[in-house]
Amino acid sequence: MKTPEGFLFSAVKCGIKKPDRFDLGLIYSPNRLTAWGVFTQNTVQAAPVVLGKKLIKEETLHGVVVNSGVANACTGEEGIQRATKLLEEVAKGLGVSLRSLLPASTGVIGEQLPLEKMLPKVSELVSNLSPERYLDFTKAIMTTDTFPKIAYRSLKNGISILGIAKGAGMIAPNMATMLGFILTDAKVSKDTLKKVLPKIVDHSFNQITVDGDTSTNDTVYMLCSNQKDLKNWEDFEKACLEVAQELAYLIVKDGEGASKVIKIMVKGAKTKEDAKTFAFSVANSPLVKTAIYGEDANWGRIFAALGKTTIPFDFEKVEIYLNGIPWVKNLQVITDEEILRKELQKEVVEIQIKLKEGKKGFEVWASDLTEEYIKINAHYRT
Amino acid sequence: MKTPEGFLFSAVKCGIKKPDRFDLGLIYSPNRLTAWGVFTQNTVQAAPVVLGKKLIKEETLHGVVVNSGVANACTGEEGIQRATKLLEEVAKGLGVSLRSLLPASTGVIGEQLPLEKMLPKVSELVSNLSPERYLDFTKAIMTTDTFPKIAYRSLKNGISILGIAKGAGMIAPNMATMLGFILTDAKVSKDTLKKVLPKIVDHSFNQITVDGDTSTNDTVYMLCSNQKDLKNWEDFEKACLEVAQELAYLIVKDGEGASKVIKIMVKGAKTKEDAKTFAFSVANSPLVKTAIYGEDANWGRIFAALGKTTIPFDFEKVEIYLNGIPWVKNLQVITDEEILRKELQKEVVEIQIKLKEGKKGFEVWASDLTEEYIKINAHYRT
Repeated sequence: MKTPEGFLFSAVKCGIKKPDRFDLGLIYSPNRLTAWGVFTQNTVQAAPVVLGKKLIKEETLHGVVVNSGVANACTGEEGIQRATKLLEEVAKGLGVSLRSLLPASTGVIGEQLPLEKMLPKVSELVSNLSPERYLDFTKAIMTTDTFPKIAYRSLKNGISILGIAKGAGMIAPNMATMLGFILTDAKVSKDTLKKVLPKIVDHSFNQITVDGDTSTNDTVYMLCSNQKDLKNWEDFEKACLEVAQELAYLIVKDGEGASKVIKIMVKGAKTKEDAKTFAFSVANSPLVKTAIYGEDANWGRIFAALGKTTIPFDFEKVEIYLNGIPWVKNLQVITDEEILRKELQKEVVEIQIKLKEGKKGFEVWASDLTEEYIKINAHYRT
Repeated sequence: MKTPEGFLFSAVKCGIKKPDRFDLGLIYSPNRLTAWGVFTQNTVQAAPVVLGKKLIKEETLHGVVVNSGVANACTGEEGIQRATKLLEEVAKGLGVSLRSLLPASTGVIGEQLPLEKMLPKVSELVSNLSPERYLDFTKAIMTTDTFPKIAYRSLKNGISILGIAKGAGMIAPNMATMLGFILTDAKVSKDTLKKVLPKIVDHSFNQITVDGDTSTNDTVYMLCSNQKDLKNWEDFEKACLEVAQELAYLIVKDGEGASKVIKIMVKGAKTKEDAKTFAFSVANSPLVKTAIYGEDANWGRIFAALGKTTIPFDFEKVEIYLNGIPWVKNLQVITDEEILRKELQKEVVEIQIKLKEGKKGFEVWASDLTEEYIKINAHYRT
């Protein structure tokens, strides 16, 4: 794997996360980056989200400073000041303008950034920078993640796209659902990014759920070092989307306590909005998620989850397919229960739900719900 | 306890539920009952719901026939026919008109009523009727409930109100969230019931949640035997509401795997609808529920759950109280963590959330989320 040209990575251990692990990371480019960001819809927005939304509009940007362990959410004016101070110290170390770095944080809500631990590590953070250290960076943004999440594509003309993310669903008590970074050496204008990034996020990160809890810190940044001219826009956009979807898949796969990835595909809805509501209702239903975990072909729970949306539809006409195998038609199970059970034992379970109301569809990826999720989230701080 | 005059109860074991337990119950009155019902909002409605909605409009009603083990949901036209057949056989046994009994079912979705097991038991069901057998009836409607749910009030002038319910949240794989019956010997007109029952349900059963999954079978019937004149309407309505609230509380307390009851009280919202959305968002958040289970005073999860509604509010002004003790103000924890932890160890945990947006409030009762919920719902059919 060849990381995109024009990007350097670094990470240090400040002692925020115990046991001693990388917890402060830096992505830096000596080039002026084209950058855009997409942020959480939560009304309660963390300091780095408030700050990031402003800084992303700057014309000159050189990178991102990310910490894990503390989300810097619900920290008021002091949270903004501390995040700004950290960014400025790193900018000074790099010799770039003070407002040219973007912030991101993930960790426990309601705690201030421990600058006394972080600032002494800034010079090491800067001097460690190298094109190869992307794995250390990826580790530095992990919380309850059990593995680092990286996706990569390269195009024929040498353009490469690197995606890095963290997230294991709603990582409690951190609430720092997900951070994502998509880096490329392609030359792209800011106006184009503004249009393309929300579309990519809509078709990847916005189609996943672990527990339906939206975080205060969700952030996806796309950074372009503008080293290489784009020849085929379609190929590039497709590759970027693939990178984002691969990261989204990895987040669901690493969902807290998850044993399976569930792909819910709703088809034949009247509107896309309906299809989305149906798909998320099934994907977030604790009863569907526990049935899949228990490898129980309990289709009644899917019908109940569709119906609880209160969207009108003719449920007698609904067809369900499991990994492509016909499962329910005319309210009858039409495949042997043992065959269905075997399909449910697979690592990825595809549930296709065909309505007869219209032509719109939506797909959601979800994790199942296990005892381990409860353990992680009930006893995390203890 | 003196059951309301004019009501008889019965239950038999048909062998639907294993091991052999009461699974078919009957409430009967020789008097013409005034009756009304409130039914699930789920688009996927069980046969007894479809049928009950029609029959409740009849002028002459004499009781309710309820079974557990099979929900008779997603069973098509045959489900309606079987439910009708059962009602008619019981009506013949009682010697009342064929359309004078109401249906209710709770159990697994997608299975037909096993009439071959049920019809032979109808004569025993009828001959067992007695005013004392209400506990057997209550047992006959239980599924994963761990205890029968009964509430009772009497008024000075001898009027009594008996409430009976089943439900342990969304009882998987049964989906038969809850059935409730409120019986009284007071004389009440149907028009009055139509107005009063939805109000009572709104302030009791509609304020609880175990897992946010709405069932296909939810039904609450109120039956009045019209034996006693009402002198004080206010006292009567208050007593009925208390009965319904007590049943609602018992359902949450018996929530699948629940270790605690959580009362979420939102105040100071702009509209009642906002307050309700906030309260249910907190009450259904897996992260809040697991934190309470883990006795972890993790207030950040409450803020994130409020914010994920995307309703605008000034979160820096939100105050949180735990069992009446100030917990969070100005984004600061203002009580010692050890004191908070002790409060969280109580069986009932009250979380009061004060916003500064307006004057509207809403209260929701929820259960916490434990490993036991997963066990019950992942492995129930196995």
